Amino acid sequence: MSRVWSVDLGGFVGQRVELAGWLHHQRRLAQVSFALVRDGRGMSQVVVTDPDVRAALASWAPETVLRVEGEVAAVPQAPAGLELHDPQFTVVSQPQGPLPFELRRPQLDVQLPTFLDHAALGWRHPHQRALGRVAAAAVWGFRSALEERKFVEIQTPKLVASATESGANVFPVDYFGRRAFLAQSPQFYKQTMVGVYERVYETATVFRAEPHDTGRHLAEYFSLDAELGFISDHREVMDLVGEVLAAMFAAGVERAAAAVDELDLKVPKVPAKIPSIDFMAAQELLENETGEKVVGESDLAPAHERFLGKWAEREFASDLLFVVGYPMVKRPFYTHPDPDRPEFSNSFDLLFRGLEIVTGGQRLHRYQDYLEALEGQDVAPFQSYLQAFRYGMPPHGGFAMGLERLVARLAGASNVRQVTLFPRDLNRLEP
Amino acid sequence: MSRVWSVDLGGFVGQRVELAGWLHHQRRLAQVSFALVRDGRGMSQVVVTDPDVRAALASWAPETVLRVEGEVAAVPQAPAGLELHDPQFTVVSQPQGPLPFELRRPQLDVQLPTFLDHAALGWRHPHQRALGRVAAAAVWGFRSALEERKFVEIQTPKLVASATESGANVFPVDYFGRRAFLAQSPQFYKQTMVGVYERVYETATVFRAEPHDTGRHLAEYFSLDAELGFISDHREVMDLVGEVLAAMFAAGVERAAAAVDELDLKVPKVPAKIPSIDFMAAQELLENETGEKVVGESDLAPAHERFLGKWAEREFASDLLFVVGYPMVKRPFYTHPDPDRPEFSNSFDLLFRGLEIVTGGQRLHRYQDYLEALEGQDVAPFQSYLQAFRYGMPPHGGFAMGLERLVARLAGASNVRQVTLFPRDLNRLEP
Repeated sequence: MSRVWSVDLGGFVGQRVELAGWLHHQRRLAQVSFALVRDGRGMSQVVVTDPDVRAALASWAPETVLRVEGEVAAVPQAPAGLELHDPQFTVVSQPQGPLPFELRRPQLDVQLPTFLDHAALGWRHPHQRALGRVAAAAVWGFRSALEERKFVEIQTPKLVASATESGANVFPVDYFGRRAFLAQSPQFYKQTMVGVYERVYETATVFRAEPHDTGRHLAEYFSLDAELGFISDHREVMDLVGEVLAAMFAAGVERAAAAVDELDLKVPKVPAKIPSIDFMAAQELLENETGEKVVGESDLAPAHERFLGKWAEREFASDLLFVVGYPMVKRPFYTHPDPDRPEFSNSFDLLFRGLEIVTGGQRLHRYQDYLEALEGQDVAPFQSYLQAFRYGMPPHGGFAMGLERLVARLAGASNVRQVTLFPRDLNRLEP
Repeated sequence: MSRVWSVDLGGFVGQRVELAGWLHHQRRLAQVSFALVRDGRGMSQVVVTDPDVRAALASWAPETVLRVEGEVAAVPQAPAGLELHDPQFTVVSQPQGPLPFELRRPQLDVQLPTFLDHAALGWRHPHQRALGRVAAAAVWGFRSALEERKFVEIQTPKLVASATESGANVFPVDYFGRRAFLAQSPQFYKQTMVGVYERVYETATVFRAEPHDTGRHLAEYFSLDAELGFISDHREVMDLVGEVLAAMFAAGVERAAAAVDELDLKVPKVPAKIPSIDFMAAQELLENETGEKVVGESDLAPAHERFLGKWAEREFASDLLFVVGYPMVKRPFYTHPDPDRPEFSNSFDLLFRGLEIVTGGQRLHRYQDYLEALEGQDVAPFQSYLQAFRYGMPPHGGFAMGLERLVARLAGASNVRQVTLFPRDLNRLEP
């Protein structure tokens, strides 16, 4: 008898089938026991009346791995309207010793460090694993939207010779006895590949030796990167971000419908044009509304972003807000200035419910402009990066999105670690 | 006027359109010049008769970035049956200085080190970038086949606390002042996630501090990993490998048709059942056919794999051959033994035209079995890996495929570096 997924039981009413999975929970009443069997995709209720089978079931601990054969019955009052009756169990394998916490409650009620220490168990919780499904669907949506638009997927090196993008926050690697670094982003390589395919994307882990112990930072995270050529300016990149994000949310709703339901997610509708505010205007707004002195600062603080998020919700009923035109002094050297206001840049951040989840913009594309941008610095470490610009490059731009932040925001999780399988930070390198 | 891709010109015959791209090559005849303009997706021939425009064109170096407006004409004798007439050019940006090599010939005739030193240029060659498109299509096929089969995409850490999978060949990282390592594979994490989703996959870079300077090894490569639960044994994994590989080749043919054509690839048909040979039988065959003493050795040498590849082609007209049942002594500690011959394993390699591109098998799933497999070793570094097995795990298995090797074999490239965007090895960390 071949195994049937819990979510497919409805097609087998009146037939005997085999389920396989984990004993999620059992309830014992006077005459009957109910076993909840969790498989990789859902959960089934198994009704046990035979005294011997009840006794055996009672002896099995939660997370016992089982196969169970039984007859599928349509029972309106059962959890999914279906039950398995007259079951025969086979124990496949047994857990060792007591579990560090229980999975049976609708919410996983454990402290974050305990959860993280026992991630292998914690991710088995239906709520938790639904988060992973939403993340996977969003990544699928990201890739699909870009493939439709003729972007080509690339793989770029994670081991690099110099920490060129930003001197700090890099992890040094002992690379066959010499010093290398872990790539903070695929930035230089995706730009280089614009010279080949014009439109490229990468979905890959990036590394930040991030000394801040906050709910927003991880030492490695999953970066969704895209870059495209022959743009007029950063606004074309912003349009693309909107289209891609819409596709990611749509994929979540379509491909992870049960997970979205399980988590009761409010998935935002992405408007045809995401509202945006100029960086300077945002500072003036902040100053007027909060009285805090911010005009003249070169960046926005997280609290400012939260404020702007609330403002966008109030003003535009929008979960999303672009902040555009950051000062050049706060953006990396490859950023293209605003031709009309050279101290500001053709760059943007996207806030999702007040948290920055995307950063992007137009890049410099002329070799000479790079040399000028790097003036006063040693150009040697940049030579291999600058290669592409010597060979002729069109105006181009792109963006990077942090998957964990997006999912955290979507799920209302205050800490990205809650939605990351095995997070890495200042203090955590295991499991 | 909005820009039209070269490959879409056929839809605009008789109309004026704008192309954008790089000046790939020009030919100057007595009365007419031909400019080949390469964009991210193809190439167009532009016919120039105006003397002033011809003079301007003559002054532009290869790889000059251009926009060109002109009328699309159907011309049977032109390269794609289409030309652009009466063109007006705009120079977008200019390359700096002479190029290290020419892109205009059908084959890129440069030595590998020269090509690798100037990858930003080399990958612009039509032949070369076709390789990247085939790779991208294959990855798409991998993910699609697994999504259809209800696998869930995961992201697992690349920074790990201990070099547990195999002690050697790891890169040490300075992780906030303590020692960490780059993950050699997602092995332990994908197994752990079988406990959550039963079926998982990951497409990500893995790291090997590989001291061998061969055409098969890279210090980082793109690993296509899958793992699934509730299997009977490794043969279910082998069936999955066949299905996935068929989908990858089909995706290459469908999604990268022009690239497959450009490269004149012979894409193999994957039979419903890929031929297989037992490890011992393979050794006996080798010994009988070559006279070389190999029975008793615990692994196959690359030359043996090449021999077996040719044998499979002769015997089964197959480009693919599974070698099954490697000795336990040569497989990692998590490998499941063959219950009937405990010194051999439920594991396999897949040879593609005589090169190992997949390795996989059934894994141990009982906590106690892991403790026994690790007997005599310090278990402490394995504790976080063994967590999942304490919580109850079903029989499971999986496989890992090296993307670069697959593409190299498909393209008949003798060195994986020829098909890797920016390869990393013992000697190379740039560009």
